[in-house]
Amino acid sequence: MLQTINVNTSGRCEFVDITSQIGHIVAKSRVSSGICRVFIPHTTAGLVINENADSSVKEDIIRALGKLVPQKGDYGHSEGNSDAHIKSSLLGNEKTLFIEGGRLKLGTWQGVFFCEFDGPRNRSVWIMIEENKNAGKEI
Amino acid sequence: MLQTINVNTSGRCEFVDITSQIGHIVAKSRVSSGICRVFIPHTTAGLVINENADSSVKEDIIRALGKLVPQKGDYGHSEGNSDAHIKSSLLGNEKTLFIEGGRLKLGTWQGVFFCEFDGPRNRSVWIMIEENKNAGKEI
Amino acid sequence: MLQTINVNTSGRCEFVDITSQIGHIVAKSRVSSGICRVFIPHTTAGLVINENADSSVKEDIIRALGKLVPQKGDYGHSEGNSDAHIKSSLLGNEKTLFIEGGRLKLGTWQGVFFCEFDGPRNRSVWIMIEENKNAGKEI
Repeated sequence: MLQTINVNTSGRCEFVDITSQIGHIVAKSRVSSGICRVFIPHTTAGLVINENADSSVKEDIIRALGKLVPQKGDYGHSEGNSDAHIKSSLLGNEKTLFIEGGRLKLGTWQGVFFCEFDGPRNRSVWIMIEENKNAGKEI
Repeated sequence: MLQTINVNTSGRCEFVDITSQIGHIVAKSRVSSGICRVFIPHTTAGLVINENADSSVKEDIIRALGKLVPQKGDYGHSEGNSDAHIKSSLLGNEKTLFIEGGRLKLGTWQGVFFCEFDGPRNRSVWIMIEENKNAGKEI
Repeated sequence: MLQTINVNTSGRCEFVDITSQIGHIVAKSRVSSGICRVFIPHTTAGLVINENADSSVKEDIIRALGKLVPQKGDYGHSEGNSDAHIKSSLLGNEKTLFIEGGRLKLGTWQGVFFCEFDGPRNRSVWIMIEENKNAGKEI
């Protein structure tokens, strides 16, 4: 079953840590070993798995993307958010995460961020959980 | 079963909308809820999920990538297409899409693009569909 | 079952070809048709699927990323590796690969690279294999 997380962003460019919300859906699913798929149905936002311990890391990523892809530029799209579409394409908008021992299995310093590039907006994150049927097999 | 979509590109850099071809394979699979995996076996092309309503968006993405990674540069690879390998690495070449209600489930403005960076060429897109066996469970 | 590949990197920025190690895990799994998921639990490293025939390609990718995201810059994170976090975000740290005929199914020129951006370090790559239960169905 597809689950939805709602994310309300408050700035034009902003990374929102959605790790605990994804973890909550994983826990409720009671899947012990499997996969958690995350997909965002937006074209001016992205998904990143990176450090959520020191918040200056996400600020550095936002600033670096802003330098690589400026808001004002030689763009044809008339809505003034071409930079957001380009950043969304660079980061991607789907991730596949592992579930083990009934919990989301990430690295020590990893968190999952919803990356807003054209906010503030009300956004959605879709989650699909699947049990790994090979989990009990010896491989 | 692995399915293949053939894409013939006509320019060096070109985004080809393959959403309807993927949707056709999803419909034929008769999978109601599940996953559609897309993979391209190429090293000078990529995949992007972004806006397919206004075609200036894809042109803006192509132009921005061309500025970030120029065709001519300080490259060691002798085939003259290092920029294409780099763009392919930045965008990636595999995506996992959701199926719900027997249809490819994308956002309102989203389409799936095959991103040619070293054309014109005849290219392949591999598709693998899988039913979600948890679909009927209450989670 | 989650499998782990250990990767020891020897430079600050280095791409390590892990294709054969992933292929070995796929072969041992005895899964004929399915999916091989690759995930790295690190925030200063990435994964790329690109050419492994001419090693100058990976060097070109490393150099281009170094130009786009310099090691020294206007960064807030105090550990001196903000560039590594940004490169990790751009390339991503999870990939979904296809298995067919009991083997990892990649394009002719494709290899899977662990991308170190803050080495030398001892790193891990997580692998999860899943059989495609639709494999025998006519679609």
